[in-house]
Amino acid sequence: MADKKSSNGGGDSAAGMGMEPSREEGSKNIGETLLRLLPIALCLSALVIMLKNSQSNDFGSLSYSDLGAFRYLVHANGVCAGYSLLSAIVSAVPRPLTMPRAWTFFVLDQVFTYIILGAGAVSTEVMYLAYEGNAAITWSSACGSFGLFCHKATSALALTFGVVICYAVLSLISSYKLFSKYDAPVNTSSKGIEITPAFYA
Amino acid sequence: MADKKSSNGGGDSAAGMGMEPSREEGSKNIGETLLRLLPIALCLSALVIMLKNSQSNDFGSLSYSDLGAFRYLVHANGVCAGYSLLSAIVSAVPRPLTMPRAWTFFVLDQVFTYIILGAGAVSTEVMYLAYEGNAAITWSSACGSFGLFCHKATSALALTFGVVICYAVLSLISSYKLFSKYDAPVNTSSKGIEITPAFYA
Repeated sequence: MADKKSSNGGGDSAAGMGMEPSREEGSKNIGETLLRLLPIALCLSALVIMLKNSQSNDFGSLSYSDLGAFRYLVHANGVCAGYSLLSAIVSAVPRPLTMPRAWTFFVLDQVFTYIILGAGAVSTEVMYLAYEGNAAITWSSACGSFGLFCHKATSALALTFGVVICYAVLSLISSYKLFSKYDAPVNTSSKGIEITPAFYA
Repeated sequence: MADKKSSNGGGDSAAGMGMEPSREEGSKNIGETLLRLLPIALCLSALVIMLKNSQSNDFGSLSYSDLGAFRYLVHANGVCAGYSLLSAIVSAVPRPLTMPRAWTFFVLDQVFTYIILGAGAVSTEVMYLAYEGNAAITWSSACGSFGLFCHKATSALALTFGVVICYAVLSLISSYKLFSKYDAPVNTSSKGIEITPAFYA
């Protein structure tokens, strides 16, 4: 195991000195970059669908901007698309991952996961109320009168949950990348330092 | 770095052989256990406040169970309290952290963070609508008539966001514990092996 680690370390140093990253690293990087590009498409689709979502009929007119939750959804999709683009560019550059960079990816991935999950959750609740209404607080169902609006909003919502899944996976990847740079917690190790002969070779 | 890792590897096997955990490990374990116990108090408080939350007046009567979002909040707080208790008991036992156990903690902590965040988000949206109403879809503000109900629901919501923060930190801890057991990704560190003279002393 120590040998594996040390060979790793050796590879790292090569990367640090500006040598070409190995084929395996490259394909891992491409995978992560694609996973960071995918939310851009989803976010922008959801954003455009929602931005164009308004309906006027005999009952009045309803636009996404009338509902705070949908405004939040649009903003969340906008910033997530921006962050996805930026992080895809940064992660596409084959550079060694330093600690501050690993921490930045980790924290931002977590924050954006929570932001987009929150946006999806509040919009789902509004959609639910819009479809079902609520008799106890005399909120009428709006989707009977504004069917097209509700239909488009549901599509945008489905795309948003696609983004949530991408971000959950990205959070996992970035926490793996960050924490695998750390030592195992103290209660897993109890033996002293072992320097294998490989180090001296 | 490689040395550190190798000492780790050796440590796993030693811990696996049933050696006593050190004092430092013990205090870390106690910290984590306390952080797992804290959400129980918050969840149960939020749950009890919400369960007892109903108001009747001249305008009619309103109970938490009339609103899907609040029912979800109660359920989410209930299962989170249960999971917190269970995980606190498991983490209090000073046993070496095996991979399946680390993965279980990691996955469940993530899932429950998302569940409780979702519950907080949908309830916040309902509270917002209950306070503000919405003119476009003719939803009236309910908190004018049911002020006490809204007040109690807001308290339960604040407690729930306390739980969200605890779970976000627990997710961080469990992902640290899991991923620090893994190898660093190949393209992550920039420096080569550095064996300081201290190792030879």
